[in-house]
Amino acid sequence: MDEEDSGLWLIGLGPGDLDLMTVAAVEKSKKCDYRFLEGYTALLPDNQLEKLTGLVGGFEKVMRPGVENPKEILDLAKKSKVALMVVGDPLQATTHVDLQLRAEALGVNCHIIHGISITTIVTGAVGLQSYRFGRQVTLAYPYGEYLATSPFNLILENRERNLHTLVLLDLDPTGMGVEIQKPMSPKVAIDVLIRSAKKIGVDIDDWKIVLCTDMGGENQTI
Amino acid sequence: MDEEDSGLWLIGLGPGDLDLMTVAAVEKSKKCDYRFLEGYTALLPDNQLEKLTGLVGGFEKVMRPGVENPKEILDLAKKSKVALMVVGDPLQATTHVDLQLRAEALGVNCHIIHGISITTIVTGAVGLQSYRFGRQVTLAYPYGEYLATSPFNLILENRERNLHTLVLLDLDPTGMGVEIQKPMSPKVAIDVLIRSAKKIGVDIDDWKIVLCTDMGGENQTI
Repeated sequence: MDEEDSGLWLIGLGPGDLDLMTVAAVEKSKKCDYRFLEGYTALLPDNQLEKLTGLVGGFEKVMRPGVENPKEILDLAKKSKVALMVVGDPLQATTHVDLQLRAEALGVNCHIIHGISITTIVTGAVGLQSYRFGRQVTLAYPYGEYLATSPFNLILENRERNLHTLVLLDLDPTGMGVEIQKPMSPKVAIDVLIRSAKKIGVDIDDWKIVLCTDMGGENQTI
Repeated sequence: MDEEDSGLWLIGLGPGDLDLMTVAAVEKSKKCDYRFLEGYTALLPDNQLEKLTGLVGGFEKVMRPGVENPKEILDLAKKSKVALMVVGDPLQATTHVDLQLRAEALGVNCHIIHGISITTIVTGAVGLQSYRFGRQVTLAYPYGEYLATSPFNLILENRERNLHTLVLLDLDPTGMGVEIQKPMSPKVAIDVLIRSAKKIGVDIDDWKIVLCTDMGGENQTI
């Protein structure tokens, strides 16, 4: 591990069970002067928050504005070691790729410590081959009457090529990333799929959907 | 962590740098009575072998026959705790999904401890969005005159949909998984691509290829 005095470390926590943090993630988070937990792209289960404090020390939570407009974090990282801890793998979300680019533009050292991503776990856990998955999609909350059908179209394209789709469910009903996160329930997800299918005129009665929640402390239903 | 007396643990080591092993992977490997390192689907760099011994204790290496015909391992796992340590994530290779099914059929408890997979790291490391990747493929060594064009066709299909392809390079020139592994060199990979393109009649002069090696201790070229 390097001995730099300042910089930003984007640190992956893995899928929510902190036993699945890497040794490097624990060690580096401990050594940072400031620690932030990113609460916008994914959620750490409540019962793990205290455990995280015990493992690496105290931290502050940041939401979307703090991450997408990260003046405070980057200013700190110019003079001290700052950890931004992210559930999953930090570079799976474009938000953090953007943060990395901003840091580099400001001459702030930016390091990545990878974590296990849910995108890795799901394919094996459901007994399907990772090679048979097409492009992944995120199903967004509908905004009032507006329903985006592009995720549904991508699933259709994968199906036409006989591929599975990993569908990630939205966390943020407002789309603003500021309030309390609310993971989309399966009921809402199915409703979005059915409404999308109706809008496009496709019959999805025979589709097979595998529902996974809390992977890595897990709970599966078909 | 459970207190069972026997069983098989499929343990992911992550991408080759052992600092990227999870806390759970280190702890559980240590506690097993027998440890095997799977040397067939991926390679652990030589300089990490000694480090692994220091971290978790001694181990034996198993190649493809030991994993695909795992009587010895499963017999051991009936009476004691057996770790099969796998570079990357254990369930990314179908070989291990198969092993899991065999264990369950024999009534042997089988547990998975996930690891960081190269498939997670690459998308972010090259600065591309994971959402824009289509189906991944493995480029196999050609056998004499025989050249399988199916991987190339899958890359073409992704390109037609404006998607990137993660191309994994074969490790095993013989296809048998018994001898010394030899990761495919970029030169051979490019040659396979060019020969495939010629066979099918496609011009690939303007393709952009990002070459990644030793990811997680890394070394990139475009």
